[in-house]
Amino acid sequence: MPDILSPDSVGLVTPQTHQFTNPLSLECGRTLPSYELVYETYGSLNERRTNAILICHALSGDHHAAGYYTMHDKKPGWWETCIGPGKPIDTNRFFVVSLNNLGGCKGSTGPNSINPETGNPFGPDFPIVTVKDWVKSQARLGDVLGITQWAAVIGGSLGGMQALQWTIDYPKHLRHCIAIAAAPKLSAQNIAFNEVARQAILNDPEFHDGHYYQHKVVPRQGLMLARMLGHITYLSEDSMRKKFGRELQEGKINFGFDVEFQVESYLRYQGRSFVNRFDANTYLLMTKALDYFDPASQHGDDLTAALANVQAQFLVLSFTSDWRFPPSRSREIVKALLNNRKRVAYAQIKAQDGHDAFLMPIPHYLQIFQAYMQQIEIPGEKS
Amino acid sequence: MPDILSPDSVGLVTPQTHQFTNPLSLECGRTLPSYELVYETYGSLNERRTNAILICHALSGDHHAAGYYTMHDKKPGWWETCIGPGKPIDTNRFFVVSLNNLGGCKGSTGPNSINPETGNPFGPDFPIVTVKDWVKSQARLGDVLGITQWAAVIGGSLGGMQALQWTIDYPKHLRHCIAIAAAPKLSAQNIAFNEVARQAILNDPEFHDGHYYQHKVVPRQGLMLARMLGHITYLSEDSMRKKFGRELQEGKINFGFDVEFQVESYLRYQGRSFVNRFDANTYLLMTKALDYFDPASQHGDDLTAALANVQAQFLVLSFTSDWRFPPSRSREIVKALLNNRKRVAYAQIKAQDGHDAFLMPIPHYLQIFQAYMQQIEIPGEKS
Repeated sequence: MPDILSPDSVGLVTPQTHQFTNPLSLECGRTLPSYELVYETYGSLNERRTNAILICHALSGDHHAAGYYTMHDKKPGWWETCIGPGKPIDTNRFFVVSLNNLGGCKGSTGPNSINPETGNPFGPDFPIVTVKDWVKSQARLGDVLGITQWAAVIGGSLGGMQALQWTIDYPKHLRHCIAIAAAPKLSAQNIAFNEVARQAILNDPEFHDGHYYQHKVVPRQGLMLARMLGHITYLSEDSMRKKFGRELQEGKINFGFDVEFQVESYLRYQGRSFVNRFDANTYLLMTKALDYFDPASQHGDDLTAALANVQAQFLVLSFTSDWRFPPSRSREIVKALLNNRKRVAYAQIKAQDGHDAFLMPIPHYLQIFQAYMQQIEIPGEKS
Repeated sequence: MPDILSPDSVGLVTPQTHQFTNPLSLECGRTLPSYELVYETYGSLNERRTNAILICHALSGDHHAAGYYTMHDKKPGWWETCIGPGKPIDTNRFFVVSLNNLGGCKGSTGPNSINPETGNPFGPDFPIVTVKDWVKSQARLGDVLGITQWAAVIGGSLGGMQALQWTIDYPKHLRHCIAIAAAPKLSAQNIAFNEVARQAILNDPEFHDGHYYQHKVVPRQGLMLARMLGHITYLSEDSMRKKFGRELQEGKINFGFDVEFQVESYLRYQGRSFVNRFDANTYLLMTKALDYFDPASQHGDDLTAALANVQAQFLVLSFTSDWRFPPSRSREIVKALLNNRKRVAYAQIKAQDGHDAFLMPIPHYLQIFQAYMQQIEIPGEKS
């Protein structure tokens, strides 16, 4: 039986698109006169519209979080592990909404969309969007769907940052915030890695100042390097050792610059395949949104002050081997919430998989996640 | 008083070059019919030639480890902190030899040297050299200088790996081995970072398969990216936070892709300045020498077996915040030595500077280093 027919998968899904015609003013000072957001939904919205969950995606994610598009798809959505009937985000109980963020490259308006003012792709003229901008656009999507309060907003990594921003900007519009493998802001080292990735793209001769679409090329090498580098930071030293060790691809040293160690082969493969499915301008935007995220900066660098008015209950999860956003970064969020006497559950999950652990079927992780989700009350739900 | 006249500097130095005309067979199977090594010496060789110390350099190092070339030099050699009268490597007692390794780009025969067979620069035709090859070439330099036994062979990082290889390949030819911030082999993560750096260079359109000299260009962007990435791994997360935090270059977010955070400015500067002083083909060779270093691999992956016949006494030093070669990696060396009942002193130095700490004037580090060096006996020395 293919996975697609598995009883714990949402099965076949179809993305939908909504055209927003009310202008969206952005943090950078510019305004998008109109835009589209593409999204998927899983499960059914209940009558009182109290069971909706918003999924926020990470750097290279998109709206396809669960299920399959066709019977022949080899891979399901990126969070199939956690979304589906009987899974932590249980589609038997919840109505799940997952969108592609503004600036993305999978259907929502972004750099590779046509700029109606010019008739050409936006390219580098697409405005720089922030986590705050995304949350605003997500709130509008909620309005369209008739959802005035989310049962929960959930995300991992950059997605967790969006969930956190939701609690600050729309405190009454969500009951639960689940921030997984996130941080209240990037460290200098995080920014440094992003900067190397950006320089790789910006300096690729095929980048053409971001107008590569018109040249019918893509900055392959730059985007590939960015992704290879990203992958190093997503995996832990331990998981890399377990996966590849120092194993040689052909069993012996070749004294050349072709692939020799298996880890090299893995990285090159990851880099190459990413180029075929992601847009370089979007990658640039996403890294900037990460760099800029710093809600405490509006409150004298005081995260406790930034979170003073949140009303949601929190689940914060971190993973021991995550060195991109290690547990200490999650605990900063937890501490600021506790300083405010907010309700927060926190768990540090033992995991070898590094930052990528939030996508993995780690039993302890799924158990805690599920237990938390099960106790979320749904007004109007038959018990 | 300029530093150059400081009583604890070796002052003005002049590099020397030796032309080797006996062919050198390399691990890769190829042979260099002849080659040059450029080196500097500090202090005086005693009559019995028992006070010589060999300094091995790291990835981007060279022979200019101490002193100044002219009265107008702004910077001394790369290890001025540790080499000079009264310093840990005390030139009042020791005769110090520091060379540029084969394959380097600062005067020793390497990819940017003229290949006598073609009349053009070697470029990518320069053979891939290993730590073992370097040690062999260094032993020949010792022969030329009439040094049959080094009082000590000393190095940090890749330099420490050479010092370790010395004890295996020429056990009787050194009395002390000092390996600082080193590792017995690279981890998969270390190799992964090297691979991203190499891909950045190899895919730079100005690389021209390594023949960029003939095109009168250099793969600037690739080498710059490699160096930026390297710098992230040389600094600790803590030291980056201390140095830059999330400080904005202009005090505010600009919503663009120019430098915004100070850490970006630092990395770009480091990358750009490196391009002007280093050769991309040499960078490729150095990273390969790092990847290949694994003395235990010749002994069934048993480091204890690899070090069974060493005779030198060891000082192994590591730094708490070094995540490139963390203390645990140094302790692998220590443990293998202790398994063999060899004499080894080990210290883990508390330092915030990451891998770069081995170049820094950290008092505790210099004290331990100096104390060890002072107890090295020099046969024939007046006490």
